[in-house]
Amino acid sequence: MIRIVYFPKIGVPQFNLPFTSLRSALADPEGLVWVDMVESDADEINRVLVNQFHFHPLAVEDCQSDGYQTPKLDDYGDYLFLIIQSVIGEGSFEDEPTRELNIFLGKNYLVSSSLKKITAVEIFRKRLEKDERLYQNGSDFLCHALLDRVVDDFIPHLDQLEEEIDYLEEAVLSNPDPKTLERILRLKRYTMTLRRVIAPQREVINRLCRDDFPMIDPYSRMYFRDIYDHLVRIYDLLDGIRDMTTSALEVYLNATSLRLNEVMKALTIVSTIFLPLSFVAGVYGMNFHYMPELEWRWGYPMVWLIFILIVAGMLTFFRKRRWF
Amino acid sequence: MIRIVYFPKIGVPQFNLPFTSLRSALADPEGLVWVDMVESDADEINRVLVNQFHFHPLAVEDCQSDGYQTPKLDDYGDYLFLIIQSVIGEGSFEDEPTRELNIFLGKNYLVSSSLKKITAVEIFRKRLEKDERLYQNGSDFLCHALLDRVVDDFIPHLDQLEEEIDYLEEAVLSNPDPKTLERILRLKRYTMTLRRVIAPQREVINRLCRDDFPMIDPYSRMYFRDIYDHLVRIYDLLDGIRDMTTSALEVYLNATSLRLNEVMKALTIVSTIFLPLSFVAGVYGMNFHYMPELEWRWGYPMVWLIFILIVAGMLTFFRKRRWF
Amino acid sequence: MIRIVYFPKIGVPQFNLPFTSLRSALADPEGLVWVDMVESDADEINRVLVNQFHFHPLAVEDCQSDGYQTPKLDDYGDYLFLIIQSVIGEGSFEDEPTRELNIFLGKNYLVSSSLKKITAVEIFRKRLEKDERLYQNGSDFLCHALLDRVVDDFIPHLDQLEEEIDYLEEAVLSNPDPKTLERILRLKRYTMTLRRVIAPQREVINRLCRDDFPMIDPYSRMYFRDIYDHLVRIYDLLDGIRDMTTSALEVYLNATSLRLNEVMKALTIVSTIFLPLSFVAGVYGMNFHYMPELEWRWGYPMVWLIFILIVAGMLTFFRKRRWF
Amino acid sequence: MIRIVYFPKIGVPQFNLPFTSLRSALADPEGLVWVDMVESDADEINRVLVNQFHFHPLAVEDCQSDGYQTPKLDDYGDYLFLIIQSVIGEGSFEDEPTRELNIFLGKNYLVSSSLKKITAVEIFRKRLEKDERLYQNGSDFLCHALLDRVVDDFIPHLDQLEEEIDYLEEAVLSNPDPKTLERILRLKRYTMTLRRVIAPQREVINRLCRDDFPMIDPYSRMYFRDIYDHLVRIYDLLDGIRDMTTSALEVYLNATSLRLNEVMKALTIVSTIFLPLSFVAGVYGMNFHYMPELEWRWGYPMVWLIFILIVAGMLTFFRKRRWF
Amino acid sequence: MIRIVYFPKIGVPQFNLPFTSLRSALADPEGLVWVDMVESDADEINRVLVNQFHFHPLAVEDCQSDGYQTPKLDDYGDYLFLIIQSVIGEGSFEDEPTRELNIFLGKNYLVSSSLKKITAVEIFRKRLEKDERLYQNGSDFLCHALLDRVVDDFIPHLDQLEEEIDYLEEAVLSNPDPKTLERILRLKRYTMTLRRVIAPQREVINRLCRDDFPMIDPYSRMYFRDIYDHLVRIYDLLDGIRDMTTSALEVYLNATSLRLNEVMKALTIVSTIFLPLSFVAGVYGMNFHYMPELEWRWGYPMVWLIFILIVAGMLTFFRKRRWF
Ligand SMILES: [Mg+2]
Ligand SMILES: [Mg+2]
Ligand SMILES: [Mg+2]
Ligand SMILES: [Mg+2]
Ligand SMILES: [Mg+2]
Ligand SMILES: [Mg+2]
Ligand SMILES: [Mg+2]
Ligand SMILES: [Mg+2]
Ligand SMILES: [Mg+2]
Ligand SMILES: [Mg+2]
Ligand SMILES: [Mg+2]
Ligand SMILES: [Mg+2]
Ligand SMILES: [Mg+2]
Ligand SMILES: [Mg+2]
Ligand SMILES: [Mg+2]
Ligand SMILES: [Mg+2]
Ligand SMILES: [Mg+2]
Ligand SMILES: [Mg+2]
Ligand SMILES: [Mg+2]
Ligand SMILES: [Mg+2]
Ligand SMILES: [Mg+2]
Ligand SMILES: [Mg+2]
Ligand SMILES: [Mg+2]
Ligand SMILES: [Mg+2]
Ligand SMILES: [Mg+2]
Ligand SMILES: [Mg+2]
Ligand SMILES: [Mg+2]
Ligand SMILES: [Mg+2]
Ligand SMILES: [Mg+2]
Ligand SMILES: [Mg+2]
Ligand SMILES: [Mg+2]
Repeated sequence: MIRIVYFPKIGVPQFNLPFTSLRSALADPEGLVWVDMVESDADEINRVLVNQFHFHPLAVEDCQSDGYQTPKLDDYGDYLFLIIQSVIGEGSFEDEPTRELNIFLGKNYLVSSSLKKITAVEIFRKRLEKDERLYQNGSDFLCHALLDRVVDDFIPHLDQLEEEIDYLEEAVLSNPDPKTLERILRLKRYTMTLRRVIAPQREVINRLCRDDFPMIDPYSRMYFRDIYDHLVRIYDLLDGIRDMTTSALEVYLNATSLRLNEVMKALTIVSTIFLPLSFVAGVYGMNFHYMPELEWRWGYPMVWLIFILIVAGMLTFFRKRRWF
Repeated sequence: MIRIVYFPKIGVPQFNLPFTSLRSALADPEGLVWVDMVESDADEINRVLVNQFHFHPLAVEDCQSDGYQTPKLDDYGDYLFLIIQSVIGEGSFEDEPTRELNIFLGKNYLVSSSLKKITAVEIFRKRLEKDERLYQNGSDFLCHALLDRVVDDFIPHLDQLEEEIDYLEEAVLSNPDPKTLERILRLKRYTMTLRRVIAPQREVINRLCRDDFPMIDPYSRMYFRDIYDHLVRIYDLLDGIRDMTTSALEVYLNATSLRLNEVMKALTIVSTIFLPLSFVAGVYGMNFHYMPELEWRWGYPMVWLIFILIVAGMLTFFRKRRWF
Repeated sequence: MIRIVYFPKIGVPQFNLPFTSLRSALADPEGLVWVDMVESDADEINRVLVNQFHFHPLAVEDCQSDGYQTPKLDDYGDYLFLIIQSVIGEGSFEDEPTRELNIFLGKNYLVSSSLKKITAVEIFRKRLEKDERLYQNGSDFLCHALLDRVVDDFIPHLDQLEEEIDYLEEAVLSNPDPKTLERILRLKRYTMTLRRVIAPQREVINRLCRDDFPMIDPYSRMYFRDIYDHLVRIYDLLDGIRDMTTSALEVYLNATSLRLNEVMKALTIVSTIFLPLSFVAGVYGMNFHYMPELEWRWGYPMVWLIFILIVAGMLTFFRKRRWF
Repeated sequence: MIRIVYFPKIGVPQFNLPFTSLRSALADPEGLVWVDMVESDADEINRVLVNQFHFHPLAVEDCQSDGYQTPKLDDYGDYLFLIIQSVIGEGSFEDEPTRELNIFLGKNYLVSSSLKKITAVEIFRKRLEKDERLYQNGSDFLCHALLDRVVDDFIPHLDQLEEEIDYLEEAVLSNPDPKTLERILRLKRYTMTLRRVIAPQREVINRLCRDDFPMIDPYSRMYFRDIYDHLVRIYDLLDGIRDMTTSALEVYLNATSLRLNEVMKALTIVSTIFLPLSFVAGVYGMNFHYMPELEWRWGYPMVWLIFILIVAGMLTFFRKRRWF
Repeated sequence: MIRIVYFPKIGVPQFNLPFTSLRSALADPEGLVWVDMVESDADEINRVLVNQFHFHPLAVEDCQSDGYQTPKLDDYGDYLFLIIQSVIGEGSFEDEPTRELNIFLGKNYLVSSSLKKITAVEIFRKRLEKDERLYQNGSDFLCHALLDRVVDDFIPHLDQLEEEIDYLEEAVLSNPDPKTLERILRLKRYTMTLRRVIAPQREVINRLCRDDFPMIDPYSRMYFRDIYDHLVRIYDLLDGIRDMTTSALEVYLNATSLRLNEVMKALTIVSTIFLPLSFVAGVYGMNFHYMPELEWRWGYPMVWLIFILIVAGMLTFFRKRRWF
């Protein structure tokens, strides 16, 4: 799907510009064009990226390949090519956390391309219809607005991560079963993967606000710097979540070992009480012909007294050791 | 709340300058103005930061957003914009450890802004009334004095952290229960979070004493360097506390496993003594018709002798193994 | 084995050029020559690398030594010498993961040399016969095409690693025996070794796309940058796999300790039920002459009642502690 | 206490120069003055550092503050200000390992100041009386000689650390009790703290031999480089000690778990031998009217044979499993 | 011991040149002199290093001090001073792994000095007699040949380390006793120490091939680069060995815990079988007057049936849980 928006210098923007008008729109140096390609097949890619814009074959190849690609910024002179990762944010923390967005930034155009629909782009599209400031400051500001949208999308997803870790921190105390362990480890891995996405993404944005590119004017740099700040914060939050999962793991493993302690205590208490008792009973179950105690009148009550003394002694001992 | 202080070149400072006089005070290039905004709503922000000072919208936005922001320094040419974190220091080590302070530093003014009251700023305000050196050396020195106050506030809080770790180091030996574990982990996490705040804060101050800004004269740089030293020391102390919590955790986990050892020893001692005794008693409880020992005159005393020999042998064995 | 391919500026390439024509082919500054040496003995090495190309003795020595060598790039002025590691990818994860490929890159020639056959080179050779773009852009582009092939070969091998870790993540839950542990540790070590290969390889390619070499024209740099991207991604994937093996190890160790818990619970339940029962039975097995209960009509049924009450009490206690 | 030494260009040095002659001594550009202040109160500090030398208030403040300060080097143009940490070396490894020494280095003077007496300074003072080379090469060489003395003091203290770790490495095998654990952890923490002192101290000395300061001539730089080498070696040794404490900790924790294994084996051996024996004895203690074995002539000896067979079988089984 | 070799520009080298001819040999700018000092006392050091060569006192001091010194390179203008560590390689992995070699490299001379004999130097000396290429390319090439020999000596020693870790990897599975643990930890520490030696040594060689020194001509730099490659490889191998020892440690600790599991299973199986059996036997050992079962004709066989059913049930239960 190809969606073209044309913002003339004066007058209202034309959403859904037909493809046939693209060439003339691009010829207007004062205007601004946004071409958004979603789920485009090889034919569409060819018509737009190759035949119309003559982008470098390697950049076009990156737009088409569907494996994970690390965020990066390639400077092709007339245009910049960016690979950005946008968060999916479904909350299961199991699959790939992000989806790839490819961006070409030229003097008077912005081309975005993704193999699957990206929520942040759709929302950005709706905003464009309402907020004219977004497209009245050139292609670099338009690009900033899109990237800002993409990065802002990470924040609510991080809130989900924090909810999960909050839940897990309670679960390791109240319910430390193997399922909890699995969720802890899954969250940890997911957080590590996200960090590996955010770190290079942060560096890409850092270059946009630090390096000197002809299509980015100094005025816009501060805005990219603002996005950079957000990515620094996101990275910090991920660091914090990783620390918390590590702590949760430690509590979990300790809970397992505390339970073993408890089980062993129960066993030890019962054994150390009843083994002596049984021994005493066994002594007076012997069949020796000459056992004076057996004939005593108070022999049997006396044995009960011994039983009671043993139990009392043991319980005192355990109390002193604070076993219960 | 907007609080304005005006320090004319000659004469006494005017605390609580009315907002209407702000413009003329700022017009005095030899004077110095401090505008302090606390819990300001959008309207106050607008009147002061936007309409009066014309600060960059991104900096204004940062003053208004209430999530955690990493300390940073933005150079807007005419003025510097700083995000600084001031410690709260309540002693529970559970929540966010710091509160954000936003600072604008211009040639002849200092603007500070925070969403909530910050103790360090209030104390600084009181000091201003007594110590005229603080405002007689220009806006950079005034800014230094404020930052110095903010950073000095961390030291007593670190003392609290050290008291906590001192307590915990004893508790893991005398009372290693799950509550102690929780406090150890909480302290560790809190310390890690503080480190993530201090590290970039240190870099912000480092830039103030290293880079060349028109509103900071060489004379003042040494003073920022002094604050930098304090932050280096704070970071070192946090490093030490983190090491100590890790040690405390190791002692705790070892205490758990030592307890298990103790319980198991008790069980083993009792079992290995009474199982053989019970067996011997069981043998002479058998009902075979032809058991010569049962008819012996000294059979019963002999069995007691066997009992005593077994117990003595076992105790000797345990002693040799140093089980008690 | 020496295999020479000559690509004249105009006309079809000559595969299997005889060695005697090599000198005249190299004399053609517009043509391009690829010399591929596999399992060459000292004599072949001498004839080609020393007598024909006069390569530096240290580079020639590196081609002949058969220990592991870290990927590197040496600039000899007229030519570049590269040591590259190509993945073997057999799937046992036990031996050295890679095989060394030595490359000399000159203005109008490419010399590759390896002690053993390398799959990637053979595939590259076949592609050359079909795709003329590969050799129509000079020796640098030809070299890029070969390196691209070598690096692409890592991807399916990483898929094998991911399959192994997927298997192991299930195995640690369903079947945590020592064999699983061994496979986890082997995979971890293999991954670490691969990382140590990939990291310097990535830096070699980085230099090819960043530094200024006379035999690499700016047009080709972007292509080396594409290979660099792949190596960055491979390194990221290896990072992910390492994290996952660490997690699997943690689950494995926890499974061992959970099993111990289960065994101990079984022991404790049985002991705490039967030790009291045996004691009661032992009491009424005593031979005291005066034991009134023994003569009661309902003594024996009463004892069974006691047995049942003890068992019921114990089971209730265990249920409450959720031991089964 | 203020101690002043004046080294005129020609003639003998004047130890214990009175304070009143300090000004004229400093006025001699060819002479060299060393002012050493120990345990000085505010008044002495004022007279010397402020009124006589006019040092920067921040440097003076650092001399007076008594918290731990990270080693640093401040360049005030006319003089350098150094904070150096000198080892105390008492051998308990519990308190702060170092004491602060403040040094001002000018063209023709050296001022040292410390809140408490420092052994290295006292020894240095005594050496001065004997070795005239130390003061015949200018203030930079004098400063080098003092720093060399301070750094050399660390070496015997590190030997103490190595003795401690040697002792602990044996103790974890022969006597792994909680006291040993405490000493291991204390040593580890102490070593970490020392590393945090040495690392910045090394960088301070590195700057003295690398940067260009007017009061340090090229000839002296090599001598600072020599001190730098010692600090590198000290840091390496601390690294080694840290590794060894970590190993000792691992052996300790393993010893705990080996002990548990041993205890459990004893329990298991006794239980698995005597539980079957007691069962057999229990069988022939039953009171059934019709139990043929009880009436057999060789019933009782036969039971003893069974007992012996069971014990022999169990011991064989344990031997095969190598349990003892 | 002082051994002097003089290589005149033309003619055969003079091994064992007498000390008295050293001055004239050094005066020949076209010739090359190698002075090798082993176990030299203060007098020899003085005669050669101080009086003859006038080397810097700090360098001479380094030659004489016998503690461990980190590899380094000092540039004294006319000559370079290197501290290099040569491996001892005895195979016990217990003591210091290396011995110090001091090298002075001048325009037309090479001076080597060590407190104890170094194998690599002796072998190098023998090679010199056979291979004239080594001394026909100037002092830098001679120095390279010596360093190459020293670095090559590490490789067979690393093979010993790999044999040790191969042995240990088997031992942790077949024979995980405390002695194995000790060897693992010793190997780990030894490897860490070696890494701390190799890392700075690598940097020293890196400076020789990267920096611009008058006594090293560009032609020789490639040869130092070759040594650098070897050190990179050695460092990689050490990294791998460290990873493998860590894995071996993990297997060892797991083996300990698996053994505990096995012991506990044996105990649990025996207890859970015999405790119920003994209880049943105990029931029919009670002396109640009214116990109908005792008088039944088939009472006793019935009890045996109960015994067999209990054992069968337990074994089935254990089988199902896969306890054996
Ligand atoms: Mg793609
Ligand atoms: Mg944003
Ligand atoms: Mg960064
Ligand atoms: Mg912002
Ligand atoms: Mg924003
Ligand atoms: Mg945080
Ligand atoms: Mg804010
Ligand atoms: Mg301060
Ligand atoms: Mg820093
Ligand atoms: Mg200070
Ligand atoms: Mg530090
Ligand atoms: Mg400290
Ligand atoms: Mg090779
Ligand atoms: Mg590729
Ligand atoms: Mg690509
Ligand atoms: Mg490609
Ligand atoms: Mg990377
Ligand atoms: Mg990944
Ligand atoms: Mg001080
Ligand atoms: Mg020294
Ligand atoms: Mg030295
Ligand atoms: Mg010295
Ligand atoms: Mg270092
Ligand atoms: Mg060392
Ligand atoms: Mg030495
Ligand atoms: Mg070599
Ligand atoms: Mg390096
Ligand atoms: Mg080589
Ligand atoms: Mg070689
Ligand atoms: Mg490495
Ligand atoms: Mg390797």
